Amino acid sequence: MRIPILKLKDCLLISIQWELDDQTALEFQEDLLHKIHATSARGVVIDITSIDFIDSFIAKVLGDVISMSKLMGAKVVITGIQPAVAITLIELGIRLEDVLTAIDLDNGLEKLQQELGD
Amino acid sequence: MRIPILKLKDCLLISIQWELDDQTALEFQEDLLHKIHATSARGVVIDITSIDFIDSFIAKVLGDVISMSKLMGAKVVITGIQPAVAITLIELGIRLEDVLTAIDLDNGLEKLQQELGD
Repeated sequence: MRIPILKLKDCLLISIQWELDDQTALEFQEDLLHKIHATSARGVVIDITSIDFIDSFIAKVLGDVISMSKLMGAKVVITGIQPAVAITLIELGIRLEDVLTAIDLDNGLEKLQQELGD
Repeated sequence: MRIPILKLKDCLLISIQWELDDQTALEFQEDLLHKIHATSARGVVIDITSIDFIDSFIAKVLGDVISMSKLMGAKVVITGIQPAVAITLIELGIRLEDVLTAIDLDNGLEKLQQELGD
């Protein structure tokens, strides 16, 4: 089962609500990039509030998908990073630099729309 | 794997992007009602754009979850009903009366916010 990607105006919303296995993470990466291309989305909000643990592979996929989305011209906001996930990301050296973050989906979407100048 | 339910302001967004099996449909019904209760959501948008076939069990669950959400005080909008799904619903006698519908998620959310008086 793949992670649903919702389109709202010119943004894509994704809520990851369970721990990803490696295969699902790679499918998500592929699906998101195709969806950005197909919808000409200008922004992406990835909500990971429900994720309380992240391993090095998933962290790398997340870092990669952010860089790839940027290359395609979409701004990415990550919302709801929990303490343990923040610790893991920094300890793994994945600094998610230049990535917008926000406490929840509402704030993330607001931040993104400000950035996009809507 | 359960269907993710996103909370945006006082609404819940759900995008069903694959055919549901019976078990997933029932879990979705339960999850949605719990989430309405937990978040005090006033509105729900269920997007079924990706669904091009619906069987009688899923149609019944969909009809039920709409009635149940209403009982709990949340307005429901169904978006993206495809021709074959519309035909099946009417042929099965599931008229989804008093249910708001819209062509896509953007329009559905707009309609809902008008109804809720935002």
